[in-house]
Formats: sequence, C-alpha cells, structure tokens
Amino acid sequence: MLKVGLLGAGRIAAVHAKAITAHPRTDLVAVSDVFTESAERLAARFGCSVRSTAEIIADPAIDAVLIATSTDTHSDLIEQATAAGKAVLCEKPVDLSLERARACQKAVVAAGQPVMIGFNRRFDPNFSAVKSALLNGEIGKAELLSITSFDPGPPPVAYIKVSGGLFRDMMIHDFDMANFIMGEPPVSVSATGSSIVDPEIGAAGDIDTAVVTMAYANGQIAVIMNSRRAVYGYDQRLEILGSEGLLQAQNMLENTMVKSTVAGVTAAKPTYFFLERYMSAYEAEWAAFVEAFEANATFPVTLADGVAALAMAEAASQSLKLGRPVKIEEVA
Amino acid sequence: MLKVGLLGAGRIAAVHAKAITAHPRTDLVAVSDVFTESAERLAARFGCSVRSTAEIIADPAIDAVLIATSTDTHSDLIEQATAAGKAVLCEKPVDLSLERARACQKAVVAAGQPVMIGFNRRFDPNFSAVKSALLNGEIGKAELLSITSFDPGPPPVAYIKVSGGLFRDMMIHDFDMANFIMGEPPVSVSATGSSIVDPEIGAAGDIDTAVVTMAYANGQIAVIMNSRRAVYGYDQRLEILGSEGLLQAQNMLENTMVKSTVAGVTAAKPTYFFLERYMSAYEAEWAAFVEAFEANATFPVTLADGVAALAMAEAASQSLKLGRPVKIEEVA
Amino acid sequence: MLKVGLLGAGRIAAVHAKAITAHPRTDLVAVSDVFTESAERLAARFGCSVRSTAEIIADPAIDAVLIATSTDTHSDLIEQATAAGKAVLCEKPVDLSLERARACQKAVVAAGQPVMIGFNRRFDPNFSAVKSALLNGEIGKAELLSITSFDPGPPPVAYIKVSGGLFRDMMIHDFDMANFIMGEPPVSVSATGSSIVDPEIGAAGDIDTAVVTMAYANGQIAVIMNSRRAVYGYDQRLEILGSEGLLQAQNMLENTMVKSTVAGVTAAKPTYFFLERYMSAYEAEWAAFVEAFEANATFPVTLADGVAALAMAEAASQSLKLGRPVKIEEVA
Amino acid sequence: MLKVGLLGAGRIAAVHAKAITAHPRTDLVAVSDVFTESAERLAARFGCSVRSTAEIIADPAIDAVLIATSTDTHSDLIEQATAAGKAVLCEKPVDLSLERARACQKAVVAAGQPVMIGFNRRFDPNFSAVKSALLNGEIGKAELLSITSFDPGPPPVAYIKVSGGLFRDMMIHDFDMANFIMGEPPVSVSATGSSIVDPEIGAAGDIDTAVVTMAYANGQIAVIMNSRRAVYGYDQRLEILGSEGLLQAQNMLENTMVKSTVAGVTAAKPTYFFLERYMSAYEAEWAAFVEAFEANATFPVTLADGVAALAMAEAASQSLKLGRPVKIEEVA
Repeated sequence: MLKVGLLGAGRIAAVHAKAITAHPRTDLVAVSDVFTESAERLAARFGCSVRSTAEIIADPAIDAVLIATSTDTHSDLIEQATAAGKAVLCEKPVDLSLERARACQKAVVAAGQPVMIGFNRRFDPNFSAVKSALLNGEIGKAELLSITSFDPGPPPVAYIKVSGGLFRDMMIHDFDMANFIMGEPPVSVSATGSSIVDPEIGAAGDIDTAVVTMAYANGQIAVIMNSRRAVYGYDQRLEILGSEGLLQAQNMLENTMVKSTVAGVTAAKPTYFFLERYMSAYEAEWAAFVEAFEANATFPVTLADGVAALAMAEAASQSLKLGRPVKIEEVA
Repeated sequence: MLKVGLLGAGRIAAVHAKAITAHPRTDLVAVSDVFTESAERLAARFGCSVRSTAEIIADPAIDAVLIATSTDTHSDLIEQATAAGKAVLCEKPVDLSLERARACQKAVVAAGQPVMIGFNRRFDPNFSAVKSALLNGEIGKAELLSITSFDPGPPPVAYIKVSGGLFRDMMIHDFDMANFIMGEPPVSVSATGSSIVDPEIGAAGDIDTAVVTMAYANGQIAVIMNSRRAVYGYDQRLEILGSEGLLQAQNMLENTMVKSTVAGVTAAKPTYFFLERYMSAYEAEWAAFVEAFEANATFPVTLADGVAALAMAEAASQSLKLGRPVKIEEVA
Repeated sequence: MLKVGLLGAGRIAAVHAKAITAHPRTDLVAVSDVFTESAERLAARFGCSVRSTAEIIADPAIDAVLIATSTDTHSDLIEQATAAGKAVLCEKPVDLSLERARACQKAVVAAGQPVMIGFNRRFDPNFSAVKSALLNGEIGKAELLSITSFDPGPPPVAYIKVSGGLFRDMMIHDFDMANFIMGEPPVSVSATGSSIVDPEIGAAGDIDTAVVTMAYANGQIAVIMNSRRAVYGYDQRLEILGSEGLLQAQNMLENTMVKSTVAGVTAAKPTYFFLERYMSAYEAEWAAFVEAFEANATFPVTLADGVAALAMAEAASQSLKLGRPVKIEEVA
Repeated sequence: MLKVGLLGAGRIAAVHAKAITAHPRTDLVAVSDVFTESAERLAARFGCSVRSTAEIIADPAIDAVLIATSTDTHSDLIEQATAAGKAVLCEKPVDLSLERARACQKAVVAAGQPVMIGFNRRFDPNFSAVKSALLNGEIGKAELLSITSFDPGPPPVAYIKVSGGLFRDMMIHDFDMANFIMGEPPVSVSATGSSIVDPEIGAAGDIDTAVVTMAYANGQIAVIMNSRRAVYGYDQRLEILGSEGLLQAQNMLENTMVKSTVAGVTAAKPTYFFLERYMSAYEAEWAAFVEAFEANATFPVTLADGVAALAMAEAASQSLKLGRPVKIEEVA
C-alpha cells in the first residue's frame, strides 16, 4: 500500500481524497490545511488524521504527497517534499513566476525525486482517445490544432486578482493540452485578448476572452480559444487536422435525451464544470501516478511539462503586452 | 448505518457490493454463496465476513438483504428474508413461474416487509430524464412508445436453456421499462419472434429476435424490439411520441471522439454491455433503496412491479405459441 | 426528347411537372385536370398546353403519361394509357381495392406496356444509401427492420373519409419501403391501431396511430410505426439490424445550425413534409423512369410492387379487424 | 423579365447560368468567353446566344451582366458594364490588387450603377440561420467568432501561382463571412501560416495552412482557420460565442445514413466541394440580386464589401511577411 499525505483540504483536495481512498493500492493517511476546520471535515469524511504540513512531510511512513494547496505555496512544498524523499503529485500551475518554477525544477533535479504535475485533462478519455488515434497514425501527420475551452462563468474578481491572470490560471491547461497533443512545444506564441465578459475583470488588469496562436518548428499551427463565460456550460473541445483526416473530441453531455417539439430538437447541455466533466480524469490521473511510482517509471506528466506550459503562458502575456508574437526562447 | 447482507457473490453481486460499500450510510456486513470461494473472494475485496445464507437471514443485526443469487432461489429467499423482518432488494426476475411469483407476493404482503425489485434501468440517467420530461408534460400526452434493446452477443446455449427464455430473461427489463414510462400495464400483448441469430438457440426451444406490440386501455401502443446480437455493442434506446413532441433516450458512447477520414465520419461505439452502461444506475438504485428505507416510504420499484413484468413475459410467450394477441387478464 | 402528358394538375402534379421540365431529355407537352383552372395555372407556369385527358392519351406524339389524379381514377387511366401504347408513371396507390388493382395488373400485362408506380421514397438518397449498403453486405444478413413514419399533422377528416384509411393511404409507402429494403414480401402481417390523435378520425372509421409487425419466410421481422401527428415535423426514419451491424437513415434537418444556451442545445427540426423532404427523390424518380424507358429496361418500381404493397395494406386492415395476424396468402 | 448577359463560360459560370434560367423572372440572353467552344457549349445547354463581351455590354436590351471571368478582368469589366448602365453581379474577388479594386470602386460610384459581389456563402441556409439568430439576439452580444474553412484538396500549383495567394483566393470568402457575421470590419489582423500540405506550394511563394486572428474595436475577436487539404471533404463550419450562448453552423452531410459495426459508428462525409455544398446558396444569391434590382434597393453584398475583404487579405499578407499584427488602416 502506498501511504499518501494530502496537503490542502479544499474542493480540489476532496476530489483527490476520493480518488486516493477509492484506489485499491493507496491509503490516505493524513491531511493538512491552513484552515483546521476544512482539514477536519475532509479527514472525517475520508477516515484519515489531521496533521500539520511539516509533520506530513517529515513522516517517514508517508511515501507520497499530493499538493492541492494555493498556487503560491506549490514551489516551496514541492522542494520540501522532494527533499524529504517523497514522490509528489502537485496541482497545476507549478508557480505563477516562471523564474521561481525553474528554480524549483533545479532543486527537484538535485533531490532526485520524481514530481508529477496535475494536468488532469490528459487523462480525460476523450482527449486521450484523440492522442492515441494520432499516435496510431489514424490521421497521418498533425497539421493544425484548435482547442476550445470556455468556463461556464467567470470566478469572483477577488480571485481573478490573485490568479496570475487568464493565461497562467485558465489557459495553462490548454497550453499543456497543446503540448500533449503536438508532442513538442511551439516556437512562438501570439496572443489576442480583451475584457468583454465583465469590465471589472479588465479593471483588475486581466482579460476574459482570448485567442492564442502558436507556430511550431516544422510549420504546424495551434490555436487556443478561451472565454470565462459560456452560459450553456463548460465547453471543452479540441480538433486536430492531419494529412489524412480530422480528429475531434466533443463535449460530454449531461444525458442522452433528445426532445423534439415545435420549438426544435433539443439535447442536454455539456456536463457542468470540471468536477463533473473531469471526475474520471482525476481517477485515471491518480491511477497513472501510482502505476508509474510502483514501476519506478517516469511520470506521464513531469515538472518539466509544468514549466513548459508556464513558459507559454509567460510568452502569451508578453505577446499581449507587446502587440507582437513572442518566441519561447525570449522568455527562457 | 444500514447493515446489509448480500446473498450471492457472482458478477452482479460484486456490482451491488461496490454500491453498498461506496454509500455513506450503508455497511456491507456479510456475504454468502453456494460457491464458498466466490464468497471469500468478494468478502476479501469489500471487507466483510462470509456466512451462510441462513445465518445472514437469521441475524437480527442485519437490516436489509440484497438477493443476487440464481433466479430459481429468488422467491424462496424473498419469503424467508421478509419473514425474518428484513427489507429486501432482489434482482430481477422475481421468478420464472408467474404462479410462484404471485404466491411469493402474497407471502410478502402477509409478512408486511417491503421488497424492491432490481429493475436498475429505471435509474439510468437517460431513461429517468425521459420519464421526468414526460411527467412534466413536456411532450403532452404519451401515445406511442418504442424500445430498442439489443445485447452485444448471445449468451451460451447452456445458459439459454435455464434462462426461462428471451421474454423472461431479457425482455423482462423492457416490459418493466414500458410500465415505468407508460405508468400502467398494457391490456394485451402480441409477440413475433424467431431464431435467426443462432439456430442452436432455436433448437433449445428459444428465440433470439423478437418484436412485441402492446395495446393499452386508452389506445396507446408500445413496441419492444429485442435481439440477442448487435455486433457494434449494447444498444439501449427508447423513444416516446406524445401529443406535443417526441422524447428519445439514445445510447451512451465510449467517448466523444469523432474521426473524419476518406472512409467517412466515425464516432465511438455504445458503452459495452450492462456493467458499463448501467454502472451509475446500480448506484442510483441502491441510493433509492436506502432513501426509501430510511424514510419508511414505498420503494420506487415494488414486488408488484416484478410480478407485472413477469405477467407480460408470460403473455408474450403464449402469444408467440398461439399466434395471436393475448390479454394480460388471460394469464392472471 | 421524351414527350410527356401530365394527368392531374394538383400539388403533386406540379412537383412532377417541375421534374419533367428540368430533365434535359424530357418535354412536358400537355396537362389535363377536371378543374380547368388548375390545369391552366400549371400550363402557364411550365409552358405546356391544356388538353383533355382523352386527347392526351390519344395523341400519338406523346410517349409517356404521368398519372397524378385522384386515386379512384388510377386503375382506369393506367389501363387506357397502356392500351394506347404509352409508358406510364402512376402515383401511389394503384387503387384502394386490391381486386381492382389486380384486374388492372392483368390488363397491363395484356397491353404489354411498362408501368412504374410512384413510390418516390425509394429514390430518397438516405434510404437508397441504406439499400446499397445492405446489398454491399456491409451489415451482413438483414434480421430486423424498423420504420418510423410520422406525418406532421393529420389531414382534414373529409380527406380521411375518402382516403382508404391509414394503411392504404399512408402506410402504403412504408409497406413498399419494407419490400424495397427486405427484397421480398412478408408472410404475415399483424396490426395494432387506434385513434388517439383525433377522436373524429376514429368516428370516421379510421385510425391515426398504428404499429404493424411483419414476419418473413426465413425468420426476419419488420415493424412499421405510423402516427398522423408529430408536431415537430415530418419524421421519416428507418433502421435495419443485420448479422454484422446496424444501418439507420435519419431525418434531414432544415439546416445545420446548433444553438447552445442555458435552455439546452437545440438543432433544427426535420425538413417539413414530403414536398421538402422528398423533392430530390421526385427528381431522381423521374430520372430513373426516363433512364429505364430509354434503355428499354424494367422499371425500378413496377405495377406488381404497387399491388404487393396494397395486399399488405389489405392484410393489415383485416388483422386490425380480426384481432389476429393475417397471412398475405389469405388476401390473395 | 430581367435580361441577363453572362461574361465567362467556365464551371462557375455554368452554375450561374442554371440559376438565371431557373429563376421565373430572369432570362439568360447571351454568353461570352475567350474560349469560343466553352461559350458555345454553355449556350447550347441553356438556350442563349454567343456574343463577344463588348457586344453584350453594348446591348441596350440587356439589363444586367454577371461577371464570371478570370479575376484579372473583374475590375475592367465592372467599370465597362457599369459605365454602360448595367447592373452587375461579379464573382469574388474584385481584384488581386487592393489599389486597383479601390480605383474600380471610385469609377463605379461615378457611374452610379449598383454592383453586387458574389460572396455566395452569405446565402448558405446554415450561415444565414446563424446571422438571423444573432440579429434576433438569441445569444446576446457577439464575443468570439471562429471560422473553419478547409478545401478537400489543393488546386494545381499552376493555379496557385496566379491565384493571388491563399488570403486573396481562399480566405477572402472567410474574411467576408467574418464581416457578414460581425457586422463590421476588424481593427487589426494577425496571420500565421505555413506550407505543410505541399512543399511545392511553399516553393511557389504561397502557404497552404493558415490561422488569422482579428481584433475588433469593442474587444470582440475572430479567428479563421484555413487548410488547402481536408481529405474527408469540404469542411465549412463556423461558431460564434455570445454573452448568452453559442451558435454553430455545422457541415452538411452527403446523406443521413449511420452505420454501426464492430469498427465503430460511421456517418457520411460532408457534401463534396463548393458546387454541392453551396448550390442552393448560388440560387439564393441570384434571387437576392433580382429582388434588390426590382425593388431598386441596395444589394445585400456591395462592391464596398468586396473591397473590405480584399483589404483584410492584404493586411493578412503583410502580417505574415512582417511577423506582427497589421492594422486595417495601415493598408488603406
């Protein structure tokens, strides 16, 4: 049994706690949180103890640590946990600062402990089916990738202010998805963005609607479309055109009922938000972490992947500011 | 906590064991099976004890019994468990003999203990969305129901021989679905059937392809189409035409990927077989059992529902033999 | 150029006039109608002369006659036109009386002139794609056919009274479709029907909702579902299960727009009624008539096909009356 | 009757000839072409005379001229025809040179004769349904438009060399579609492109794959994706996200057949290429021209629209060359 300590007890931590306890070969041992009440509630629900973060990291009986705390603590906790010899699964993003993330990456290499970054969408059955079909050569050589990723509604402006901005907080998932599908990072990034969903988001210095185009070394192109608001639900699709066809991953719907009346033919809306849409992805992510740990194999998503996505977010931010494409090497 | 004893340790019993242990307010206490090894395997996996069926039924600390044994034992076990004061959830069908099922029904009434029959499809989110929309009046008054229900492939002929035949073994689910959607039993049943999938099924005295039409008191009509073989997967759909529209429950697909090549536009196949398609339905079924038990309310599927579906299967058998429609009252 | 005389100048005659004039190798020469005004309007629109039916049939310069008059005149006109040496395309049904249709069939054989019956749905690109795929063996051997055929709304009761009833007037198309897809007539027909859309239809001695099941010599089964009212439009679908798969022909929609809002995901309704849905089928039907005429080949839909469909309608009527399946040979 | 002269007798001219002759209130009088044989073939097929371009333009009995010649003659012919008092429908693009197109625009204003540019896609029932729904406010305020427009395969490199390049030859349609949907031109255009479909296209100085992002005055964004090759057919879709929902125009399919086998669930491919996909759009375009002409109203697509799309193509070319976004006013 893999003994697991969980850092953080918020909404996403609970999702991970469920996956850990449901897995036949992992045990949730302890949870920590700056809000003791949250930790106690989660501990009661999943049958584990409440400890301090330091105690969890110091406990030699704990094999792995899952970091689901606020973003500003990620780098520090990754460094502490790997230094203590733990295997680590850390929620995205690695950090809001590319510089800090790179320093963390160096420390982790020194510690020699593997770290996996929680880009859960790679484990979504629909996106991974696309990746498999592409690897199988079912549409030949990839040429043009397009990712549509809309949230159902914007978060509170208070959150926006500390989020690191749309590129680091929201599109970071899509940058990683592009890397996952294309199998390599782009050469340059060109961003267009605006605040038309909510002017307060603009007032807070962020954007809520954005299109980012990426150019690859061999002429491939990818484009990501983000909006903080799709009133019909959580819109998560991608399509990739290849030399021999097109692959699309479409939305999952709440149910398969279709109603035909004088008003038209109506189907269900997309499954609402990430907890519903990606629940099976979180479970598959944890299973992949455990499997790689047990086999002493490379994690399917590495800290380097986390840093690569962050570099793209950084390049997009600069592109938006400078009004021109920015090369990834410029932010390196 | 509701203490639960599980009778049977086969494939479907394991599905129920998973639902019982996952439910926050129910405890799987013990399991029994004629094959001790099966019981031990299940007990090890879900952390409960192995006992004899008699011990489980006699244990006053056990509140409820879930019957997932072979069909020929259902009636006896229902009677014993209710006589011992247990709440019962029993897999379908109640019995292969309509007469025996009716005797069981009488005994249960005498015992005064509630029994729920495991017509799990009523809890499928797609079919229950149709039922809700119908109850909401979204398509007016129901007029014409059509149920398509194909298995991916026929079971072994050895199973066919003891199954009670297609109507009692397979279409029994669809008879109950018709009762669920229409809200009342039909007046008469007219069956057409043949053995074209596998001549050995015909040699065993059964059919593998059937269409059953049902007429209702107020002129409504329902039709059920069954085949033991749909090579593309498990085909489970229905549609109901009403005075103000049509409701359809379509298949769930393995994933949402669509591939377009010179060969055409290809989507995933339906989720394969009942364990995959109806997994969430089994969980919802158990939750509904627990909720009704706790609220001392009528179960959402009663023993009377099980007997009603069996009567329709009996009428269909006679219709096929006699070559004419058979009234439900003829088999009463 | 094939010189064509058109008998009848109503709505369906205008559809044919359009196909005849648009065809590069056919000329609409003359039209007749009991209502002279209708004939004049059609003649003005399509640039042909108005004559009496007798004149058209007698004119040696006219090669072919298209009969689009009221049903009660079909048999007489077929006999007169073939006796006069014309090739004939006649709208369905051949007659309301099976006996009269058979007499007509004899007369036509005696005249030695080919007659095609206007079962236009055989030329619908969707249904003919299913037929082609079936002939190509793409789903193996056919086993179970289901046809859904709902009109958007019932015709006036005055029309119902002279229509010959749902089986001869509406389901006649579906009987022919079953023959087209299955490639042979059924052995027996079993009908269930009622009047729930409009009680006045019942008062007029007809039904508005019906399910007919058909059994074939080698165990195949077909089922037809008809309703006079589908408020969401003209619902024209079929599906056939074979030993190696399923083929479905789905509805054509008014357009491909999909709207997603908080209310759900809404697509367009089916194309409204037969003029829209089957316009291309009427053109393809006429092209097939001309091609067969020019090649001196057998028409793709013969008078025998018309009589076969009528026999099935007759058997369905008797089945509904007698409350039992009726063999086709019983009505022969 | 509107008397029409057709300049050009190639493939697209034949499409227009069909629409002109099928329209109840227009007459195709004459056709001209530099290849006399082509003109004679078209004249024979549609029943009109062959004349020189000069004769057609000079004939006072001809009310309107449809220009379907090669692009390099468009501006000259527009100027000659309007100077001669004809109403003009000219195929896109107005010219390959933005400067020349603007000079033509001035000459036309001086002539005072209305000119319509043949952006036929505005008349596609699917795209126009999107436009109508947007105007109806069905998804609130438009925010993010995405256009997918892939050809089935690249044209010969010989054609590419004289085409004016992907932006002026192919994406010009999508620039106009963006203007149609958004109702205003963008402020700036940012292009990414490469030659990965066929290196010979790159050698000829053109690209075959491109993504163009456009920013609007009020923060809206549009993105166009083009590829010269989608082996599964002609891929013509768009979607627009608004404050209250999403509108999508999806591909039209060759038929509605769906085949389910062990290999998956397969539907038909998109209708092949523009003649099939946009045939009804060409007819609707001509009807709109005639209606506006008869009502003395502004044409639904003006010469200014043609110049606006060309300016966007010019800006995209410069953006690709300069490696930065280009403002529309920079090319003015």
